Amino acid sequence: MEHGADLLTYEDEFDGELIDFSSNINPLGTPKGLDKVLIKSFKDLVAYPDIQYRNLKDSIADYLGAKKENILVGNGAVEIIDNFVMAANSVTLMLPAFSEYEKRAVVHKKPIHKLYYKDDLTISMDAFNNLEEGTLLALGNPNNPSGLRIPKNQLMKIYEKVKEENAYLLLDEAFFEFCPEDYDSIEIFKQYDFESVGIIRAATKFFSLPGIRLGYGCGSEKKVEAIEKIQLPWSVNSLADAAGQYVLEDKKYIEDSKVYIEGERNFLLEGLEKIEGIKVYPTATNFILIKLINWEEEYVFNFFLKRGILIRKCSSFKELKGDHIRVAIKSRENNIKLLNIFKELEGEGEKR
Amino acid sequence: MEHGADLLTYEDEFDGELIDFSSNINPLGTPKGLDKVLIKSFKDLVAYPDIQYRNLKDSIADYLGAKKENILVGNGAVEIIDNFVMAANSVTLMLPAFSEYEKRAVVHKKPIHKLYYKDDLTISMDAFNNLEEGTLLALGNPNNPSGLRIPKNQLMKIYEKVKEENAYLLLDEAFFEFCPEDYDSIEIFKQYDFESVGIIRAATKFFSLPGIRLGYGCGSEKKVEAIEKIQLPWSVNSLADAAGQYVLEDKKYIEDSKVYIEGERNFLLEGLEKIEGIKVYPTATNFILIKLINWEEEYVFNFFLKRGILIRKCSSFKELKGDHIRVAIKSRENNIKLLNIFKELEGEGEKR
Repeated sequence: MEHGADLLTYEDEFDGELIDFSSNINPLGTPKGLDKVLIKSFKDLVAYPDIQYRNLKDSIADYLGAKKENILVGNGAVEIIDNFVMAANSVTLMLPAFSEYEKRAVVHKKPIHKLYYKDDLTISMDAFNNLEEGTLLALGNPNNPSGLRIPKNQLMKIYEKVKEENAYLLLDEAFFEFCPEDYDSIEIFKQYDFESVGIIRAATKFFSLPGIRLGYGCGSEKKVEAIEKIQLPWSVNSLADAAGQYVLEDKKYIEDSKVYIEGERNFLLEGLEKIEGIKVYPTATNFILIKLINWEEEYVFNFFLKRGILIRKCSSFKELKGDHIRVAIKSRENNIKLLNIFKELEGEGEKR
Repeated sequence: MEHGADLLTYEDEFDGELIDFSSNINPLGTPKGLDKVLIKSFKDLVAYPDIQYRNLKDSIADYLGAKKENILVGNGAVEIIDNFVMAANSVTLMLPAFSEYEKRAVVHKKPIHKLYYKDDLTISMDAFNNLEEGTLLALGNPNNPSGLRIPKNQLMKIYEKVKEENAYLLLDEAFFEFCPEDYDSIEIFKQYDFESVGIIRAATKFFSLPGIRLGYGCGSEKKVEAIEKIQLPWSVNSLADAAGQYVLEDKKYIEDSKVYIEGERNFLLEGLEKIEGIKVYPTATNFILIKLINWEEEYVFNFFLKRGILIRKCSSFKELKGDHIRVAIKSRENNIKLLNIFKELEGEGEKR
């Protein structure tokens, strides 16, 4: 399973509805009132979306506290990642990471340089010692699958390093809103007019809208122009356009979600810490990476599947060596179910 | 104006609602009942679309009379065009043509070979005498902006030529359903297992859904696999996925639309033939290319705009030398309005 959430493939294996812990979506569901907004937009389907996405960009600019000229929109974060990769000379990854950075680099035949997180999946500045001149350095912030949020002082050091090498820093912040309010990279980098830095976010995870395909990002005016020159026309559909304008203004949903996720993150982490035979990585976001000490990944995956829960095997992240799983943070009810199955697994004892 | 239908840009120039003749969309609007289908699909927005689009591909295969293994889906026809271009060594165009063939070739740094339609915008087989080995030959069928449907015997000759040169024929048939029922390229080429040929269609034009972004296509199993390897994941959103499954089954809408367009095409062509100072190209589809003899393009564009009608200037098609416009075929009421403004223009006499 290359990506999470290929539910259809696994539906037959369990008699009932699977609970999807493989896909890191806000458990509060979509913001209220979205249905009405979408229904009102049905009339727009007979026309092309605004090819310049003027209203959508206004909303995003407001939401991010950035200028409209610095805003990009795309068919999910992945289209924007793809466009940045296309515009790059080479791509530098830090692994383990979201598979699409490397995949898009391969598709576009870009040279790939691989850096690695430390064993504990944090960052050592030494990793950047041989950064290639002019490369696109793509970093998840927080990173997927580890959940690591780059500490602010480290981020600034990385940015300095990137500028020294005339490189470009691409921060994939698709999970930004789930994080504790430590710093906002957009607030920081807008003071530098986004020179040598691009930041990608999305409605996908936080607004629980993976089906609608809406990503957005910030870059310098010059970079935004360059990306839009290579981007496909009308890549965001009319309903995603309307949805974006609506959900970004729902301050109550945004606040409620942050509080909810923080509560459930603490609840789930606390519960998981008590389970023997696993190692839980610290996380700043709405998913948790777990190292399996006492069991094989496949065994654990099937153990949960048989009990109606789909978790994310991490063997597609080669650096994790087939002994890691990732679980999303969901509703209290489902989180309890997850913890109970972990307890059941713990009771089985080591199986290798 | 690179593409049609940038309504927002022109809205201020006319006090009232513009009638958009620049965008070639089925005037019957979207199939009935689509609203309900979309509303039912809102619940799917909290999950990723099926990454393999299994149900959608089943519907398309049924509709096209092809095998599921030969089906591609995309974020509008333009994403599929882009993917074919990416997979090509070089791109051969026949001009004038839809601008995106060339634009995507430029974006992906593919060598471009330019062939030309004859002065009357029909095809001479001589044009293919120096077809480069292994090139992707992209042809609109019917072509945009001319409305030319490639005659069947000529299409077969082109296909032979393409196979001789180990090239690849990409037929952009986004306007297929508007054509008189002469032949169906999918029926023809499925007998050859789509060897060296790809055919692209879309819900955009015929099902009046440019806002939803849904294109699809056919190719050999091998080609489909190759394209899907380079395609962005989840590029069709959940609502487009559901809409596609629904509209392709609406046989009554499909039949009614064909009859309606044929009637209005005849009505509009007959009316336009009587206007002096223009030359009307024959068309197989739902738009008409017009050469201006007595006026400049810009003058005519503004003449219509002031009267509430947006037409398509064709100066972005360089081969048309700034003296062509394109109009869509719309409802009887609007077609009459268009003809009346043409009569008014005719009354003004030559202005150059």
